[in-house]
Amino acid sequence: MATDASAATETPAAYDEFRSTVERYKNLGYAQGVLSWDQEVMMPEAGTPARSRQTAALSAVSHEILTSDELGEQLDALEDVDLTAEQQAVVREVSRERERATSVPTELVEEISQKTSEAHPTWKEAKEADDFSTFAPALEELVELKREYAEHIAPDQDPYETLFEEYEPYLGLDTAERVLERLKEELPPLIEQVRESDADLALDSFDGTFDADDQMEWVRAVLDELGYDWERGRLDEAPHPFSSGTQYDARVTTRFDEEDPLGATYSTVHEFGHATYTLGLPDEHYGTPLGEARDLTVHESQSRLWENHVGRSKAFWQYFLPELKAHFDGLEDVTVEDAYEAANQVYEDNLIRVEADELTYHMHIVVRFEIERDLISGDLDVADVPEAWNDKYEQYLGIRPDTDAEGCLQDIHWSHGSFGYFSTYSLGSVLASQLYAAAEDDVDDLDAKLREGEFDPLMDWLNEHVHGHGKRYETDDLVREATGEPYTADYFLDYVTEKYGALYDLD
Amino acid sequence: MATDASAATETPAAYDEFRSTVERYKNLGYAQGVLSWDQEVMMPEAGTPARSRQTAALSAVSHEILTSDELGEQLDALEDVDLTAEQQAVVREVSRERERATSVPTELVEEISQKTSEAHPTWKEAKEADDFSTFAPALEELVELKREYAEHIAPDQDPYETLFEEYEPYLGLDTAERVLERLKEELPPLIEQVRESDADLALDSFDGTFDADDQMEWVRAVLDELGYDWERGRLDEAPHPFSSGTQYDARVTTRFDEEDPLGATYSTVHEFGHATYTLGLPDEHYGTPLGEARDLTVHESQSRLWENHVGRSKAFWQYFLPELKAHFDGLEDVTVEDAYEAANQVYEDNLIRVEADELTYHMHIVVRFEIERDLISGDLDVADVPEAWNDKYEQYLGIRPDTDAEGCLQDIHWSHGSFGYFSTYSLGSVLASQLYAAAEDDVDDLDAKLREGEFDPLMDWLNEHVHGHGKRYETDDLVREATGEPYTADYFLDYVTEKYGALYDLD
Repeated sequence: MATDASAATETPAAYDEFRSTVERYKNLGYAQGVLSWDQEVMMPEAGTPARSRQTAALSAVSHEILTSDELGEQLDALEDVDLTAEQQAVVREVSRERERATSVPTELVEEISQKTSEAHPTWKEAKEADDFSTFAPALEELVELKREYAEHIAPDQDPYETLFEEYEPYLGLDTAERVLERLKEELPPLIEQVRESDADLALDSFDGTFDADDQMEWVRAVLDELGYDWERGRLDEAPHPFSSGTQYDARVTTRFDEEDPLGATYSTVHEFGHATYTLGLPDEHYGTPLGEARDLTVHESQSRLWENHVGRSKAFWQYFLPELKAHFDGLEDVTVEDAYEAANQVYEDNLIRVEADELTYHMHIVVRFEIERDLISGDLDVADVPEAWNDKYEQYLGIRPDTDAEGCLQDIHWSHGSFGYFSTYSLGSVLASQLYAAAEDDVDDLDAKLREGEFDPLMDWLNEHVHGHGKRYETDDLVREATGEPYTADYFLDYVTEKYGALYDLD
Repeated sequence: MATDASAATETPAAYDEFRSTVERYKNLGYAQGVLSWDQEVMMPEAGTPARSRQTAALSAVSHEILTSDELGEQLDALEDVDLTAEQQAVVREVSRERERATSVPTELVEEISQKTSEAHPTWKEAKEADDFSTFAPALEELVELKREYAEHIAPDQDPYETLFEEYEPYLGLDTAERVLERLKEELPPLIEQVRESDADLALDSFDGTFDADDQMEWVRAVLDELGYDWERGRLDEAPHPFSSGTQYDARVTTRFDEEDPLGATYSTVHEFGHATYTLGLPDEHYGTPLGEARDLTVHESQSRLWENHVGRSKAFWQYFLPELKAHFDGLEDVTVEDAYEAANQVYEDNLIRVEADELTYHMHIVVRFEIERDLISGDLDVADVPEAWNDKYEQYLGIRPDTDAEGCLQDIHWSHGSFGYFSTYSLGSVLASQLYAAAEDDVDDLDAKLREGEFDPLMDWLNEHVHGHGKRYETDDLVREATGEPYTADYFLDYVTEKYGALYDLD
């Protein structure tokens, strides 16, 4: 049927050549992902020296392909070729990656890689010894190197913006600033009200000891019910839970605290959310940016949507509490309301980001965002980080860390040289609320469906409006496509105001 | 201390450049090893399409580095450079790999890779359906392609020899033929005597049901005692047990049959033997041939030495029987002699290679070797394989398979396009005996040490004389270095004659 129409949709040969280079480059990256999963989950402890060299070899060949003359010529050859919108998106994304890769000298990339490998154990020791001063020189170097790195990529742009764009390329640092400013304005009064509330939440609902093996059975049952595709995934333990992989093989990890079954529950549902995104990417675009997730804001929106909007809802506990009771003794008297309250406690004196609730969490992010920005601009000296950190905690959360370990050494990110990452956690929460509101508009009585354990309609909506696009749209366009509106914090603020207002009997 | 002597031992810059290319190439290969382990042991079932493309990308870049002009120039540049013996060995091994890689057209390599991916499921289905005719066309193609492949590498050499050299590059096909001829002459009379013997071995010592989890605990205990380095390894289940990795991370797998605890025991000890070799390779040569095992004969000698000379010895059971009894109920009355007899049964009617004993095993190999050789030379048509197979079983083992599944379809190797592989199993057994005899000469009262659970002296001897050399020596030189003699089947024949003579009360 060689009609004109079908002829017009034939893939140009020049695009095929380009795509084949891209696929090779991408597959080497996914192979690195497998090595990295193995390293976190399976590798025996003494395997590191070999693994580092395998990873370095893979990085080097990937980088060579991405910056190769061959790929450059293939991109040039596409300039006068008629491409579909999807093909144009692939070209846009690969060009962007290539531009960043070619503008930074290899020596600098290698130096950063070297310094971050060294900084990681230094950070770990400093945290264990509770002594920021031993990590400070490494942090100083990393700040300097990353500033230099950013200047190579975009000499005329605020370097912090360039670093932020590694993790969220299209939303704009100004959006991040605006959103965080708004959270910083509107959350503290709400947190204050919650703290002053007399509401007596059932915080002891899950006091007791919960065997780790039983917890594993429980979270597996949760993943079963939520619809995790075990033929394309697996669940293992890891000290720092994460999810990784491709649409053919998207794995999740979790961890267990025998005193806290909610910890494993929400960590698992969170990583499940990430995995749903990966699994929803289109198979036919595997190996190109159209088969990849749209960076960290959108990724985090999926994990937070499942963790918070589904997992921390009353509907979730209506459906899952009987299942939980079937796995553990001693929970006979716990009601759905009890479980819901225990899962949504707002902490008064929690200093640790990863243990924070949905309200105070964002103040933890604001602290890191402001400190990072000032470090990169040079307005803040590394030596002054602990004091700045503690002052900001006092100012924004009314609590002051006594130690560096519970203060500015708590997170791993800076030892990886990751500056600009943290804000995507808040941007993702905000987007989760916006997407969930749109899904509620489109799916009849979504809450009732969740109460019945029908998670497919929500999953289908997310697949259709988010996952299936891969990197087809830039972030803000993806949000508009999915929700009909530009990116906004309105829904998040409405959500927390309503939810915590009801929980804590606020006016 | 810049004396002349130290100056003379400085590594030439040209060698450093060469070595760095080699290391990159090798590390990409080890990365493929990790992907392959993951695929066999961890990967969810639907992950195959993505994994195949990741592996193909890695193969392609590895092949490009090995055949690159850059590596060619680096090798040329070394021609007039003074190199140490070790450096010369690296150059020798890399040149050999490069020569093979460059002489075969990429299209042929890709076609073979394509056909073997297709042949594997075809073989599996044919075996399940017990119908050779459905596998025959694929086998026909693979025979043809591998013959062509061999002709590219060495146009003037017997193609079967060239294929054999993929797995054992230095011992020579003539050695393999000579050894197999000798086994074919000397084993059948011994097997005949065993079969006619009235000896009443305690073959029911391990009748019963043995829980798979308990078996896992038991084989872990065995690995502990034998000295497996868990900081550099791990044990998992896999349908076809194997071991893989590098000196920093050498993993083993096993499988469990609840009716047969010896199956898992010996499969685990066998793979442990492979892993000891890998773990004994020198760390400082990681990433070059000096840090890699000397091919399949020597590798198999290590697995067989630990499986047979250690694991199937009376000394082994003297030490381990109490441990086994601690893991399983109902073995109170089993004596060391009982265990030893049960572990060394010679089968009268076993058609399956992987279930064969130390004597009949090699007749299984002879059948395959002769059939392969005739297939590649064209003396045997693929269609006639089942009959040839069955005739040879009748002739050499006195038993005739009723089905293809229990006959010529039993092994996976041909579906991988692996012709020339099988004989290395026998060559390895033969070498195991020779090495073990040399170790007995060097280590005071080795058998008494094993009875006491002292496995270190044997391991140290193997590390020093075999493992630590990597690919420093060609196979025959390695044997001479380790044992003071050329490669010979004498020790193997003495070993089985003595052992089975005593077990079966032969004259």
